[in-house]
Amino acid sequence: MAAVVSVERAEALSDLILVCEHASHFIPADRNGMGLAADGQVAHIAWDPGALGVARGLSRRLDATLVSAEISRLIYDLNRPPHVMAAMPAKSEIYDIPGNHQIDTRERLARTRAVYLPFHDCLRRLVAERLAVGRIPQIATIHSFTPFYFGQQRHLDLGVIHDADPTLAIATLAAAHAESDLVSALNQPYDAADGVTHTLRLQATPYGLANVMIEIRNDLISNEESQEDMSEILAKILTRALGALAEDAQRAVL
Amino acid sequence: MAAVVSVERAEALSDLILVCEHASHFIPADRNGMGLAADGQVAHIAWDPGALGVARGLSRRLDATLVSAEISRLIYDLNRPPHVMAAMPAKSEIYDIPGNHQIDTRERLARTRAVYLPFHDCLRRLVAERLAVGRIPQIATIHSFTPFYFGQQRHLDLGVIHDADPTLAIATLAAAHAESDLVSALNQPYDAADGVTHTLRLQATPYGLANVMIEIRNDLISNEESQEDMSEILAKILTRALGALAEDAQRAVL
Repeated sequence: MAAVVSVERAEALSDLILVCEHASHFIPADRNGMGLAADGQVAHIAWDPGALGVARGLSRRLDATLVSAEISRLIYDLNRPPHVMAAMPAKSEIYDIPGNHQIDTRERLARTRAVYLPFHDCLRRLVAERLAVGRIPQIATIHSFTPFYFGQQRHLDLGVIHDADPTLAIATLAAAHAESDLVSALNQPYDAADGVTHTLRLQATPYGLANVMIEIRNDLISNEESQEDMSEILAKILTRALGALAEDAQRAVL
Repeated sequence: MAAVVSVERAEALSDLILVCEHASHFIPADRNGMGLAADGQVAHIAWDPGALGVARGLSRRLDATLVSAEISRLIYDLNRPPHVMAAMPAKSEIYDIPGNHQIDTRERLARTRAVYLPFHDCLRRLVAERLAVGRIPQIATIHSFTPFYFGQQRHLDLGVIHDADPTLAIATLAAAHAESDLVSALNQPYDAADGVTHTLRLQATPYGLANVMIEIRNDLISNEESQEDMSEILAKILTRALGALAEDAQRAVL
């Protein structure tokens, strides 16, 4: 298996850690495109189009470390635990995924070892090492969603989703309203109950770290220029949200 | 640094995974006993006396995998995250720990890398691999507590502690009352709010796994024979508790 995780700006100064689990649509050659037609192999079922570009723009603007996947979610969806079907889905939205039909436990185990464990071990190491030296990280995962889902149009621009602790998500939504005209909502287009906060639950919640999952409608970030524009706006939003958290923490101390 | 984690009965058939974070009082020779007198180096501040013997008896009786530490909690307390003082305590109960005075961030980082990460990566790998092949583990951590704490005598025999999900702990307490005369209580001698459920929070809660922390008063398990006796009783208790959970799950399906 090829490399599955990339860390950019490992020595960055911001306490924010950016995560992009669905950064790549790379399918190893021996997988025969997972049996999908060419368009399916680069559709939203294979990755989150535009998310990596936005995450990189954020990483540069905020001087924040970025952990991203280098393999398609069709092989293993890193935002899902190994025992759920969605980790290696046989079907995703309207797409049938032949490469995930009838995969046996040996194959599920092999992918868990090759993709899930190295990615999350890498992220956890980063979190634990920061904690050890007295830096308390926040975690923001960067995703994109498809404008049409099962034929229904989505009018949301920006979804702000949280796991058990809503603090950073609420601050991020308030900042989105203050800093942008984006149509933004909390826990849309889905929420923790839909099983979409696995990374936050695994990496942030056990340590009590502030966390948020950002979901951007992917037609807003379909090319480099619009990804840069979006990262410029999100950098302002996240800076304001993290500033509000820091102020609250300061007040709690005084 | 020496090996820090041991896995026994890796191929065991029970879904229960036993964890013993404070199994060992081993202090590497170059640490000069952490500056403690000989008695302090083997006192309850260095390990949980008797816990490993009980855990091994349970592992054998229940055919359950056991993950245990091979290094003293004085170097790194594996039931604590890296940013809390208790992970590398300068003081523990009435003991001063010179080897943990004024340790700098470099040393905290080195111990986190050498002890905390390998232990918890190993346990997580075990959990994730079980999940990948469709086995849903339960996690029980086995601890012991000192009968006298800051001079106060503790009359509790058995503490049953949980993280967010109390299901298995409640079942275990009910089973302890049914199967034994042990003076047993829920969330005693301390509870999750005291920060003692880190392993459960890190390894069980994110995956929704049933979990319990077992605390045994250490004068009840001070030699091999009494450890065997206690593991015999606890095997019955845990078998009954896990059976009750399985029955509840069965009923939920019907």
